[in-house]
Amino acid sequence: MTAPARRGRPGYDLESLLQVAVKLFNDRGYDGTSMEDLSRKLGITKSAIYHHVPSKEELLRLAVDRALDGLFEVAESTEALDGRAIDRLEHLVRGSVLVLADRLPFVTLLLRVRGNTKAERAALARRREFDHLVTDLVKQAEAEGDVRPDIDPAIAARLLFGTVNSLIEWYRPRRGSSPEELADAVCKMAFDGLRA
Amino acid sequence: MTAPARRGRPGYDLESLLQVAVKLFNDRGYDGTSMEDLSRKLGITKSAIYHHVPSKEELLRLAVDRALDGLFEVAESTEALDGRAIDRLEHLVRGSVLVLADRLPFVTLLLRVRGNTKAERAALARRREFDHLVTDLVKQAEAEGDVRPDIDPAIAARLLFGTVNSLIEWYRPRRGSSPEELADAVCKMAFDGLRA
Repeated sequence: MTAPARRGRPGYDLESLLQVAVKLFNDRGYDGTSMEDLSRKLGITKSAIYHHVPSKEELLRLAVDRALDGLFEVAESTEALDGRAIDRLEHLVRGSVLVLADRLPFVTLLLRVRGNTKAERAALARRREFDHLVTDLVKQAEAEGDVRPDIDPAIAARLLFGTVNSLIEWYRPRRGSSPEELADAVCKMAFDGLRA
Repeated sequence: MTAPARRGRPGYDLESLLQVAVKLFNDRGYDGTSMEDLSRKLGITKSAIYHHVPSKEELLRLAVDRALDGLFEVAESTEALDGRAIDRLEHLVRGSVLVLADRLPFVTLLLRVRGNTKAERAALARRREFDHLVTDLVKQAEAEGDVRPDIDPAIAARLLFGTVNSLIEWYRPRRGSSPEELADAVCKMAFDGLRA
């Protein structure tokens, strides 16, 4: 599947093409990026791109699915756990931070999706499904007496994942904290609070 | 300063013009919105807009300053407080949520500013100044033994305001919680944790 190198430029396989596309989508917006822009950035012809992928929308779908698949793998491993809902919730939050740190450009793109195309609407639907899993887990933990009853579970779920998602605004891998330290810090604040 | 009404359309003063401009900037992006778009949206000529404001960049500056002035008023009232740093920090977080809820479109625009123009860079500089105030307050609270010592103060500050800023993604006034309930929920989670 590797495109032949042109005039000494490196060839691209689908994976490296996707990485460049996602960076461009994040920098200029998905709507603001054309296949022409992508071809110029890669230094290959548009037909060389179409050799790998039928459309810009398919690149978007592959990219946001990379993020969503990671999050749903964590959700599945969470559902397979026994024990109290609050521990499963913490497992889900921790795992989501690790996915975000590992797939940062893909999660960034996912969180900026607005719903103008079919691929974007499909991504939004999967995000909502994930959000429901989180809210259900918060409700269950509250029913088990492990989450404070004076915050609405839907708001608690939004605040939890608002905190996780806000990491895309400042976290840069290989600078400062490791993903594990970051996940620790999020869980400490969200579950036990900053107060000593 | 009210523009004369044209063909039965309502006139605009600077304030209502600014409100429409900010909504358009948030929907389409600042770069993606032209004065032509704004004039079409308002149903008035471009020269009627220029009667109020010399440029698109000036509209941006007025809008982000509306958000920043609110946040700095809270910061000033925080600095005027006596007592422990953790209580001042909580006052700052609570007040910032209230500013966000009260000036939601303006804060939304501020948080999306990327730094392509002089007005945007000035806004980013004021945001950094605000962030430093937060980090200093977290450090002080940690030195006073009131913030857990096992989270880096710079990360704690980012998580705190990441949580606050994430509200722009889902909070809509006049639907569900009041701003005060929202500020309560944020402070409960961030300072004392979700765990019962």
